[in-house]
Amino acid sequence: MADRKQYLKDTIQHFDMTRHNVVPVVEAMNKMAFSSRDLARAADIYDRMIKDKDCGIILCLAGSLISAGLKKIFVDMIRNRMVDAIVSTGANIVDQDFFEGLGFKHYIAEEKLKSGNFDGELRDLMIDRIYDTLIDEEELRICDEITGKIADELDPRPYSSREFIREMGVYLQKHGKNPESIVLEAFKADVPIFCPAFSDCSAGFGLVAHQHARGDQPKVSLDSAKDFYELTQLKMKTKETGLFMIGGGVPKNFAQDIVVAAEILGQDAPMHKYAVQITVADVRDGALSGSTLKEASSWGKVDTVFEQMVYSEATLAVPLIAGYAYHKGNWKNRAERRWSRLLEPVTA
Amino acid sequence: MADRKQYLKDTIQHFDMTRHNVVPVVEAMNKMAFSSRDLARAADIYDRMIKDKDCGIILCLAGSLISAGLKKIFVDMIRNRMVDAIVSTGANIVDQDFFEGLGFKHYIAEEKLKSGNFDGELRDLMIDRIYDTLIDEEELRICDEITGKIADELDPRPYSSREFIREMGVYLQKHGKNPESIVLEAFKADVPIFCPAFSDCSAGFGLVAHQHARGDQPKVSLDSAKDFYELTQLKMKTKETGLFMIGGGVPKNFAQDIVVAAEILGQDAPMHKYAVQITVADVRDGALSGSTLKEASSWGKVDTVFEQMVYSEATLAVPLIAGYAYHKGNWKNRAERRWSRLLEPVTA
Amino acid sequence: MADRKQYLKDTIQHFDMTRHNVVPVVEAMNKMAFSSRDLARAADIYDRMIKDKDCGIILCLAGSLISAGLKKIFVDMIRNRMVDAIVSTGANIVDQDFFEGLGFKHYIAEEKLKSGNFDGELRDLMIDRIYDTLIDEEELRICDEITGKIADELDPRPYSSREFIREMGVYLQKHGKNPESIVLEAFKADVPIFCPAFSDCSAGFGLVAHQHARGDQPKVSLDSAKDFYELTQLKMKTKETGLFMIGGGVPKNFAQDIVVAAEILGQDAPMHKYAVQITVADVRDGALSGSTLKEASSWGKVDTVFEQMVYSEATLAVPLIAGYAYHKGNWKNRAERRWSRLLEPVTA
Amino acid sequence: MADRKQYLKDTIQHFDMTRHNVVPVVEAMNKMAFSSRDLARAADIYDRMIKDKDCGIILCLAGSLISAGLKKIFVDMIRNRMVDAIVSTGANIVDQDFFEGLGFKHYIAEEKLKSGNFDGELRDLMIDRIYDTLIDEEELRICDEITGKIADELDPRPYSSREFIREMGVYLQKHGKNPESIVLEAFKADVPIFCPAFSDCSAGFGLVAHQHARGDQPKVSLDSAKDFYELTQLKMKTKETGLFMIGGGVPKNFAQDIVVAAEILGQDAPMHKYAVQITVADVRDGALSGSTLKEASSWGKVDTVFEQMVYSEATLAVPLIAGYAYHKGNWKNRAERRWSRLLEPVTA
Repeated sequence: MADRKQYLKDTIQHFDMTRHNVVPVVEAMNKMAFSSRDLARAADIYDRMIKDKDCGIILCLAGSLISAGLKKIFVDMIRNRMVDAIVSTGANIVDQDFFEGLGFKHYIAEEKLKSGNFDGELRDLMIDRIYDTLIDEEELRICDEITGKIADELDPRPYSSREFIREMGVYLQKHGKNPESIVLEAFKADVPIFCPAFSDCSAGFGLVAHQHARGDQPKVSLDSAKDFYELTQLKMKTKETGLFMIGGGVPKNFAQDIVVAAEILGQDAPMHKYAVQITVADVRDGALSGSTLKEASSWGKVDTVFEQMVYSEATLAVPLIAGYAYHKGNWKNRAERRWSRLLEPVTA
Repeated sequence: MADRKQYLKDTIQHFDMTRHNVVPVVEAMNKMAFSSRDLARAADIYDRMIKDKDCGIILCLAGSLISAGLKKIFVDMIRNRMVDAIVSTGANIVDQDFFEGLGFKHYIAEEKLKSGNFDGELRDLMIDRIYDTLIDEEELRICDEITGKIADELDPRPYSSREFIREMGVYLQKHGKNPESIVLEAFKADVPIFCPAFSDCSAGFGLVAHQHARGDQPKVSLDSAKDFYELTQLKMKTKETGLFMIGGGVPKNFAQDIVVAAEILGQDAPMHKYAVQITVADVRDGALSGSTLKEASSWGKVDTVFEQMVYSEATLAVPLIAGYAYHKGNWKNRAERRWSRLLEPVTA
Repeated sequence: MADRKQYLKDTIQHFDMTRHNVVPVVEAMNKMAFSSRDLARAADIYDRMIKDKDCGIILCLAGSLISAGLKKIFVDMIRNRMVDAIVSTGANIVDQDFFEGLGFKHYIAEEKLKSGNFDGELRDLMIDRIYDTLIDEEELRICDEITGKIADELDPRPYSSREFIREMGVYLQKHGKNPESIVLEAFKADVPIFCPAFSDCSAGFGLVAHQHARGDQPKVSLDSAKDFYELTQLKMKTKETGLFMIGGGVPKNFAQDIVVAAEILGQDAPMHKYAVQITVADVRDGALSGSTLKEASSWGKVDTVFEQMVYSEATLAVPLIAGYAYHKGNWKNRAERRWSRLLEPVTA
Repeated sequence: MADRKQYLKDTIQHFDMTRHNVVPVVEAMNKMAFSSRDLARAADIYDRMIKDKDCGIILCLAGSLISAGLKKIFVDMIRNRMVDAIVSTGANIVDQDFFEGLGFKHYIAEEKLKSGNFDGELRDLMIDRIYDTLIDEEELRICDEITGKIADELDPRPYSSREFIREMGVYLQKHGKNPESIVLEAFKADVPIFCPAFSDCSAGFGLVAHQHARGDQPKVSLDSAKDFYELTQLKMKTKETGLFMIGGGVPKNFAQDIVVAAEILGQDAPMHKYAVQITVADVRDGALSGSTLKEASSWGKVDTVFEQMVYSEATLAVPLIAGYAYHKGNWKNRAERRWSRLLEPVTA
């Protein structure tokens, strides 16, 4: 059996979009076909969102994106006012970003591990695998514990995931060991982060431990309806919105749904004016992840003038699309939204 | 513009597995290759779960399965003690099953609508599209309202989605117009249903309306941590478990995670002994939905002796796998678990 | 290292569609959604081809279908006048079907071999792998040699692949060891088989050896233009045609193209009236394999009234579609075409 | 109905890899995960092929690559000694590259055409569609005719596709209207091009017309066995080989097979030392296009030290991989092979 250290030595390094001007490459793709043309159009739509002074930008994250080396791109998007709210799976925000904020790393798995034939050995070594990437499970348990401690120190009441993640930002500001963190940077920039399925991640483990320890006493609970209510309020207070979606799943569904929720609350909110989705999911299984943005327009969620699906695995497309918008530089003239402050009266 | 009635006339009809003995077909596939052999092995593993007297069976549902005509299969699985708990996306349980329980239907879309070119027209007609299936949006709004009313009549406190869905079962028993309902049948059989991302569905709309109306007053909240805690408790009280997963997403992640959660609560729960997943998701984007069950074993979640992925769109594979197990008849000797009762002391 | 015999012991067994009446299952799928409804529609279209007295049926085979257990279905289709011509990759016809006609078998690979981690060991043992299926490479070499011998005994001139495959049928009739063979049965029923890319298979190896041995002397050559000309002639002599395509690739392209070729030869042949394709290929890479049959209609190749793509791996869909048409029994009233005879004057 | 000119106005423009130094971007992807890391490794392997003085490089092309804007990349690879032989589908070489060499263009289709709902209209306008790209069918017919004329002027005997394509190069040198052509540039650089399934393309139409006109007289035929024999001879005369495969299908199969063919001719040729494949094809349908390069090693075709699959649609990955190798500049020290000259004694 190999040693743990042999497996956990070569770390994932995050793509720095600020160092690579991909504008000419993306522009050259604009007159090609298939994914390249779609990607160029998506990049243009994202840039339009940034230029549109009335448009709030919601970034949706599904899939293992942070462990895959895309973290710094999202951090730089926050730093440069290229995003106003984030809706994500719990894994990206807690198990991967908060985890790295605590000073831990993701590791490159050697090719043969992808086969799955060595997963028993990894199990014995307490190493977790995400396709071609490895995680030290002992470090992940520390991450679970810290989320439990954060819960222990909160007033026992229902929280939105946004409120809880904000507390994680507070924690990182005090105890963090790596400033390159979405949770930290979003906290500082008042960019709210929502994880509508918050319990199926490291934070869920911490919260289960918290609730178990509290027994019949008052405890912290995670109100997913409040998540939805809060994001809907942001929609109601903003004229226009655009979605930059990476992967599908709950974040896509949740962010699209707020248009309908606003309508139900009696406000005639416009459909999302811009929408971009990067995914390899197939439309033919009828599931939401691969469903077209045109289909979303039948539900009254997404307008169809500026929408584009891009058929690509995310690690190839995100550096090009986000990098294009970064180097176009229109974020320089964009006001920061600090949307979290709009929600504080609600939560205080 | 076509008339609404022209679009909404041909209804989806649910596959009745009790009428088709597919055992010989599935057995013949066992000595072939590719998906057919994998499907036959998956059917055998599901049958083993049913025969294993110690094994509790958790059914995971992601994707638009109910609107696609698979509802009756799941209803019959509940009726025949072939499942002990369900973890699902909200859409399947609320927007589609509860919706049909209220007497509404799903409609077959004609081929050309799949293109998306007519979604503007559908939008104007208040018709929602799921790939090749149509929904009357006005009926869906009624469904939203009813979930809001259910919330209005509950004590204002944090609920697990399971508790809330149980109340939906109570509602259907009184007011339902279609006895073929997962929510209703699960209520009657004390099969708990969890929707860990409950807010991104019709129930979410109802709950947002409820919370908005309550303002600063006490209100119903949906505690996703409690969901996780409850399902973990079921794992802790049961010797062995098996997963029958259709699609990936949050249900897959949530159900797999309870092994780790039990461990965190100090109980050395065994990994899921059996696991089957039907999906067309691709392993190469590194996301959870397509990740192998071997990969889950590196996380200590799934044992690898009886695990099988099946590469097929669900409407083809589910009738064969579930039908195989039904006609093998081993459920006749299986005790009902009535797992909801294990959770009542917790929730009361 | 494991022994060869340990790997090569469990044989692939071919699905016998005549023993499973799948008509009720397929009919039940007709009112569902996604792949099941598409499959039911495709089965209906194939049945329409059989009922249409004017329609010649061309079966297209791509992918490893014979080694996967689908051989007997195609053999039974020939026996029961459900197909009039076959266009295939060389591998299906030579390496797999002719190979089995010689008495050799395909073997079931155990799960772990799919990982690829044991391919070096297989290489050393002279075992070839197709995903989850194994082949004895020594037997495949015998197959190569026999095709070389067949070439050695022919007059040295250009042959269409159809002519050459016909000679393989003659060979099997004399020396074959397994009567369940597409090549043999097609020979007996005068169903022409075309492999437009004949050289990239076992026959190619035999022919290279033949040409190498002949040096500057006259030799057998394989005229792919003649293939195209012959199939085009069949189209020109037939009123209507239907395509039953399994997989995409060269067979799909070749069979669709004959409409245009007939037009170029001055005859206004109608587009293929019926077309069904089973594939998991994705439309988004722009390649022919996943391109829609609607797209083919822009090229004037396929009519759009009766066309249907089915998103499914072939081993699941073929038994249901072909089995449906078989048990509907409309082939009983169908005249045999014996299309090979139409081509004999050309080739003699 | 729209006018033809409205559809055929915006031309596809080919990516110029010489103008975009993507080396830093690709290097940054080397420490990420999923497709980006695989792509970086593939780029490195291709660069190794170029640096390896003993290695002949075979480029395999499947899918609609030329019409998609990748033509100039392949032209520049020929010009800069980055490739020694090409194996392709006929469509890329004849319908698309030779077609553009004649002065014709490919056109950008507007988004809505992708739906297929307008293919009837396109058909009436004599416009052919490839996903999001349009072709003037009248121009394509001219291309068909020219290939027929080329055949008419040749000695009537069996030709390899390579020989025929060489004559197309001669034609372009005399009559071509666009110097940016793979066929032309390969002719000038003595880079042989093989289309093993030559008949299912524009050249096939020309050759069918030729054979039809010749009737019983001697005629040009296309010997696919000779193709295979010729490429095998190149393998036998070269020490080492590497494959750069874009898409799968016949080109992949054909190029891999020459190792076995060489062995059958009694020469112990080494396996392909390097192999890279860009594809979105799925391994789970068992077809060759998506089969792993490890699987090919069980057949003794590809060595496993330097092999890499990249999961990406080609228009995204090819500019990065080929561009990386171009800007690394190791081709500057690479000798030209002029492999066509090795085959002339055979064909003369």
